[in-house]
Amino acid sequence: MKNRPRACLTIVLLLMCAASVYAAEEAAAPAKGDAPGLQPAVLVGLATMLLVAKLAGELFERIKQPAVLGELIGGIFIGNLVLLGFTAAEPLKTDAVVAALAQLGVILLLFEVGLESNIGEMLEVGWSSLFVAIAGVVAPFFLGWGVSAYFLPGDSRLVHIFIGSVLCATSVGITARVLKDLGKLSLRESRIILGAAVIDDVIGLMILAVVIGAVTATMAGGSLSYVHIFRIAARTAAFFVSAFVVGHYAVPHIFRGAGRFRSRGVLLVLSIAFCFWLSWLATRVELAAIVGAFAAGLVLEDAHFKLFKERGEHELRELLDPVTTFLVPIFFVLMGMKVDIRVFARPQLLGFAFALTLAAIAGKQVCSLAVAERGLNRLAIGLGMIPRGEVGLIIAGIGATLMLPNAAGVPEPVIGSAIFGAIVIMVIVTTLVTPPLLKWSLGREQSAVSRGQTANGVQSPAKGED
Amino acid sequence: MKNRPRACLTIVLLLMCAASVYAAEEAAAPAKGDAPGLQPAVLVGLATMLLVAKLAGELFERIKQPAVLGELIGGIFIGNLVLLGFTAAEPLKTDAVVAALAQLGVILLLFEVGLESNIGEMLEVGWSSLFVAIAGVVAPFFLGWGVSAYFLPGDSRLVHIFIGSVLCATSVGITARVLKDLGKLSLRESRIILGAAVIDDVIGLMILAVVIGAVTATMAGGSLSYVHIFRIAARTAAFFVSAFVVGHYAVPHIFRGAGRFRSRGVLLVLSIAFCFWLSWLATRVELAAIVGAFAAGLVLEDAHFKLFKERGEHELRELLDPVTTFLVPIFFVLMGMKVDIRVFARPQLLGFAFALTLAAIAGKQVCSLAVAERGLNRLAIGLGMIPRGEVGLIIAGIGATLMLPNAAGVPEPVIGSAIFGAIVIMVIVTTLVTPPLLKWSLGREQSAVSRGQTANGVQSPAKGED
Repeated sequence: MKNRPRACLTIVLLLMCAASVYAAEEAAAPAKGDAPGLQPAVLVGLATMLLVAKLAGELFERIKQPAVLGELIGGIFIGNLVLLGFTAAEPLKTDAVVAALAQLGVILLLFEVGLESNIGEMLEVGWSSLFVAIAGVVAPFFLGWGVSAYFLPGDSRLVHIFIGSVLCATSVGITARVLKDLGKLSLRESRIILGAAVIDDVIGLMILAVVIGAVTATMAGGSLSYVHIFRIAARTAAFFVSAFVVGHYAVPHIFRGAGRFRSRGVLLVLSIAFCFWLSWLATRVELAAIVGAFAAGLVLEDAHFKLFKERGEHELRELLDPVTTFLVPIFFVLMGMKVDIRVFARPQLLGFAFALTLAAIAGKQVCSLAVAERGLNRLAIGLGMIPRGEVGLIIAGIGATLMLPNAAGVPEPVIGSAIFGAIVIMVIVTTLVTPPLLKWSLGREQSAVSRGQTANGVQSPAKGED
Repeated sequence: MKNRPRACLTIVLLLMCAASVYAAEEAAAPAKGDAPGLQPAVLVGLATMLLVAKLAGELFERIKQPAVLGELIGGIFIGNLVLLGFTAAEPLKTDAVVAALAQLGVILLLFEVGLESNIGEMLEVGWSSLFVAIAGVVAPFFLGWGVSAYFLPGDSRLVHIFIGSVLCATSVGITARVLKDLGKLSLRESRIILGAAVIDDVIGLMILAVVIGAVTATMAGGSLSYVHIFRIAARTAAFFVSAFVVGHYAVPHIFRGAGRFRSRGVLLVLSIAFCFWLSWLATRVELAAIVGAFAAGLVLEDAHFKLFKERGEHELRELLDPVTTFLVPIFFVLMGMKVDIRVFARPQLLGFAFALTLAAIAGKQVCSLAVAERGLNRLAIGLGMIPRGEVGLIIAGIGATLMLPNAAGVPEPVIGSAIFGAIVIMVIVTTLVTPPLLKWSLGREQSAVSRGQTANGVQSPAKGED
């Protein structure tokens, strides 16, 4: 391999990065003539994030690790350049536009993941997923509660419950991305993991809603009623039932009608609009937007797009791929950038963080015991459930804004900055260990059920492999 | 044609819209658990904008008009629902995330347009474009100045100059989109129009920089120095020269190096990063970001992507298409939404607006006289230069923030709200008349030079047709 182009590439990229960082610093004040919304500094920030994502992703692929891990580490690298005195990347961490693009990225990623599977397949693995999810919620919840009670004996029981609920939700984004990078999305194990991750997201967010209700009631001097708990559960059930009803009755008509449209791009735009609409609807019933996006993907079937296919248009997944290729790395780089590596240097924190991480990892290994089916790679299922990511951080972030009276009766945040640091460490470690572990486990023993073929052979032929 | 699916589609879409509008109103307060950046209401707003764009675009395609006109009118429709009491769409007009997505859309659109042509072709039509651009700047500038001096005799000369400069810049976005919709991007006339539109954007923004310098100097009690004017011109020249130098020497190496990458999506992500980087660089020398995006597209050649093509990856334009299909309609719908149709009802404004619009249209017809080449559709070139859009509005918006002492010595905005209203009317009318006029003109007489083949046959074979 000739090395001259590689060397040129590296030098030019480094020069571009250096010039950008230097100039972005200067550009802190918005230039004259900007329309509101998009600061020019954001453009160079996005360009840098995309470059770093691809360079680090490539590096990790070459050492046989998933690209997503490279994107995270690349993000940690540019996010912590501030420790070396480069402050140019700081505004990006809190920029509303970058955050929004990252969230659109993860929403469209979950939509894409939902498209890979369909309701029939979900129901088929439904019981397995449900058992795995319940095991994966109950064990970490009580382990987290226990760790918190041991390390923070002075804190209220609601703090322990809150920390327990942070450990519940599997970060389906990381696992989905790893499985996608490995080309294993159609494995039965993958579908069980993804189904369980979605279910425990839902359960986790329901627990969160209940805990928030309890905290609010405690601050008001009362306690939580069963009616409140019932209403939260009812709303969640109503969301999924109505999503599936819309999917079964309205969606085929919509896409059959839209198939008669003559203008370009109808399939892609309509699908994205549907995904956004269901994501928004999920937030209306206090679920995460990504749950709605996954449901939207689940509800859309290739059969609905027959008219588009007959016209020779690209398939939806093929059309969606460039959009996620552009937006998804922004999410993972941003997640990395938000990690402050200085939290690793606080010894008083490390014991608690270590115990919390162990609880998070061990808790999810109970999942492998909950797999009732035979012939599956149980270990992979337990490992696939390890990562805690955006949902855990979102829950912890909410905890940081909630107030509870402490022993002296003075209100203080449910999740203080030290606890938050420990949770960040737990999120990083669980996120970083999963890709190599999952890769090792899936490579070590080939699943008894061969790739792309399910135990009872009912996989829809229209849903191809990734 | 069976009407049942169509009827179902319409009913379901209307119900979805109605439910969304109703609920979005309720959702004004952010729900608990939102990460910063993306409000759930923005998701439903984007979904609605995308739906309206496709429905209105389809409607206009069926009545043989360009889809972009439908998107604009659809935007005007939802933007003015507030007059009927629906306020749900109001926050979208000023939402930072929607504005940023719209701007990313127009940046990527200009990048795509730049990709359609290359430096060789640009230089080939360079002289024609330059003559057309200069004619298209000088005539509207002085006509606008004259109209302003006639209707606003009491205002300062700098106000007239400012209004003249608003009329300079052709909105290359609209014209490019119309030409793309008609499949005429490779016509020699189209390349002359696009080249001229870019050049007059550059000249318009240079005039703006000079006028701003003069206003600032006047407010400080002095006047503008020639050194300042020289520096503005030098910066602009430096930008284009360095973009082309980078394009010629660094870009081939970068993409040859990146062609050895093993991870997915390198071509798309690297190209978008390059486009953002050059857009940002343009803003650093006080040009519009879209000028940089166009330059980025111009600089990238298919020849650089050989390694990707050999690996069987999709072409860059094919990869970019879904991204722009998603983002560009947001820009045009938002532009429509910002139009307040009540300005049409102010009689004292209509005379001025009418004269300004006439000046804007007539001024650009001088362009057809500046076409030195024989056998071209001169009328189409003059008509293609008519639309004033984002750049005119951005310049007017800057004028609204600049202060000048009036006759009594009291500072007031250079562009007051009445003048701004007249400018908005001018922008709307020029934007709305162009697509049908251009379509009529291009259909009426086929260009003497047939499609896809240039006068002296030097078109690069690597650059295919759209």
